[in-house]
Amino acid sequence: MTVYFDNAATTPLDPEVLDAMLPFMRDHFGNPSSIHGHGRQVRAAIENARKTIAHLINAAPAEIVFTSCGTEADNYAAFGSVRTLGLRHAITSPLEHHAVLHTLQALEKAGDIQLSYVRHDDQGRLDLEHLDELLRNHQGRTYVSLMHANNEIGNLNDIQAIGEICQQHNAVFHTDTVQTMGHYQLDVQKIKTDFLVGSAHKFHGPKGVGFLYRRSGVLVDSLIHGGSQERNQRAGTENVYGIVGLAKALEIASRGMAEHQQHIQGLKDRFIQKLRTEIDGVDFNGTSAVADESLYTVLNVSLPPSDMNEMLLFNLDINRVSVSGGSACTSGANAGSHVLNALGADQNRGAIRFSMSKYNTAEEVDYAVEQLAKMYRKQPQKI
Amino acid sequence: MTVYFDNAATTPLDPEVLDAMLPFMRDHFGNPSSIHGHGRQVRAAIENARKTIAHLINAAPAEIVFTSCGTEADNYAAFGSVRTLGLRHAITSPLEHHAVLHTLQALEKAGDIQLSYVRHDDQGRLDLEHLDELLRNHQGRTYVSLMHANNEIGNLNDIQAIGEICQQHNAVFHTDTVQTMGHYQLDVQKIKTDFLVGSAHKFHGPKGVGFLYRRSGVLVDSLIHGGSQERNQRAGTENVYGIVGLAKALEIASRGMAEHQQHIQGLKDRFIQKLRTEIDGVDFNGTSAVADESLYTVLNVSLPPSDMNEMLLFNLDINRVSVSGGSACTSGANAGSHVLNALGADQNRGAIRFSMSKYNTAEEVDYAVEQLAKMYRKQPQKI
Repeated sequence: MTVYFDNAATTPLDPEVLDAMLPFMRDHFGNPSSIHGHGRQVRAAIENARKTIAHLINAAPAEIVFTSCGTEADNYAAFGSVRTLGLRHAITSPLEHHAVLHTLQALEKAGDIQLSYVRHDDQGRLDLEHLDELLRNHQGRTYVSLMHANNEIGNLNDIQAIGEICQQHNAVFHTDTVQTMGHYQLDVQKIKTDFLVGSAHKFHGPKGVGFLYRRSGVLVDSLIHGGSQERNQRAGTENVYGIVGLAKALEIASRGMAEHQQHIQGLKDRFIQKLRTEIDGVDFNGTSAVADESLYTVLNVSLPPSDMNEMLLFNLDINRVSVSGGSACTSGANAGSHVLNALGADQNRGAIRFSMSKYNTAEEVDYAVEQLAKMYRKQPQKI
Repeated sequence: MTVYFDNAATTPLDPEVLDAMLPFMRDHFGNPSSIHGHGRQVRAAIENARKTIAHLINAAPAEIVFTSCGTEADNYAAFGSVRTLGLRHAITSPLEHHAVLHTLQALEKAGDIQLSYVRHDDQGRLDLEHLDELLRNHQGRTYVSLMHANNEIGNLNDIQAIGEICQQHNAVFHTDTVQTMGHYQLDVQKIKTDFLVGSAHKFHGPKGVGFLYRRSGVLVDSLIHGGSQERNQRAGTENVYGIVGLAKALEIASRGMAEHQQHIQGLKDRFIQKLRTEIDGVDFNGTSAVADESLYTVLNVSLPPSDMNEMLLFNLDINRVSVSGGSACTSGANAGSHVLNALGADQNRGAIRFSMSKYNTAEEVDYAVEQLAKMYRKQPQKI
């Protein structure tokens, strides 16, 4: 049995998505900027994709800008807002994905902004009073970037509450929704956000494509300059198949969301219960085992101090269980997780992130727990 | 008959390229940054693609950075060089693609650089003595960006000579090779360039992927910040299928280059000869009809003043001939071509760019000329 439990890193492409993409790889190859027949049919497909996505998050089509990935969208929002609007202050948290954290730190290093961090507790819960205090104490407009759900520990932040705080202080609010897009219903009329972000390959769409929702009226300069694609917001010939696949994937995800949530939450509950039964001293990082406070797709397991910990991922890999020891979005992950470090997690304990998709099964959960338990199982007591 | 003569805008995907991509869309879906089995096989495919491309342009694998398109690569080189190396001056030409022109103009507008333009004649030939003079007269290091071949008029620039001039003045040299990559042998050991650029969809590869060649030792900051992908040079989960397709497309293009060049040059010669026979007063923009001074893939036709000119593209489109009136890389191309404007082209004359690929045939050339000639054919003279 080969088991894939690293769906927060990337998900398999849904065959239905591939089927939607293939006509644009085989037949409809025109450049969407061309005004002739070959171009027009492709342009229509892109605009249909934009409408589909806009509809699914309750936005207007003109508020959707296609990008090459979630990271580009995060960069575009941050660089664009800070430099176009002349913002001098940004607030984020040390638990953000590097796509946000490194981007804001680059702006800080370049002297554009002063960067503040919202406090959190040792389970990663953000202190929203501190956010309010930081905003109150700063003169001038602030850029706030706080994610919807953490990719490593699964914590869900209350972005509706954050959006309201931001609105009270006239802050620009960006939320990285890469882990929740396609897994939760997102409604930009309810979330008072200026920007949110999607990455197709996190919900069974293709790699190499994402989008930025940019609230109408929030005009910021492009990150990538050149042709007038995307209404002058993102130059470069469009990744046509990617965009078509992105829309199809979000459509499928939205259609089956309740069913998939129930299925995957069931797997997660099974994981928690079995791990507690099989491994003495097992625990969970962040709020990932707290119902309603974390992604149903992510479980971050804290394993007791053991000689096994150093070879944990290696041993699981040998037994054909693919998981992550933290975020798999960066290469050479040996530096350890900045999220677990920020939580002050015990360095002697092992950490594994199981992240699930609609394709996983109860048998796979049992197999993965069995492989893990082999390493940690208490010895049978003598009578 | 439906005829596609807009290959400088984009080319059909080669079915052999699609075949190389499909296994990574169907089966090998892992995130290349993941260290488990699902990730490693995908990482290997990316590194093989990097080696293939490096080999084909005589570079080292570490000098290849994958991007989402040629435009991103142009932006990355310009922003990275100017801001990391603290350059205060850049030189380009008004004939460059918007990916270069608008990017350098954005840097000028932001106050980073002063921007100079190399002179050219009315056929678009660059004045390299003027380039030398501009470099001589500027204190401090300069960023020079001059394309290998013009996407609208097809003019080929002597980038080897430009590279030598740049080297004499210790300038950073970037050349946009989007129209020549896959159509000409490019050897970075011969061209003294610090950066060159490829875009897969211009040589029968997929849309949404390109690369920057960055000479070893020229270290510049990322354009897109986040994870440590591409050795910390380009964050964001890699477009795996795109990268695999890019390498396969360049491999196929290099393999069949001599044969395709001969075939396409034959079509271009036929075009020129037939147009001269069929249309009184026909002419050619830039050096596109001058042998060895222009792309064999591009012919930019200048048509005599006529009531037909306003409806030229429209009429060809109705007759199922897809061509461009200038560059098709930008949407809503009604503003006219900045290249033809810079050449001082007669506004009363019509302009059409035919751009050809290995898939075009002599019959298609005859059909396209026939459609065009219908609009311009001289009336039969009475005896």
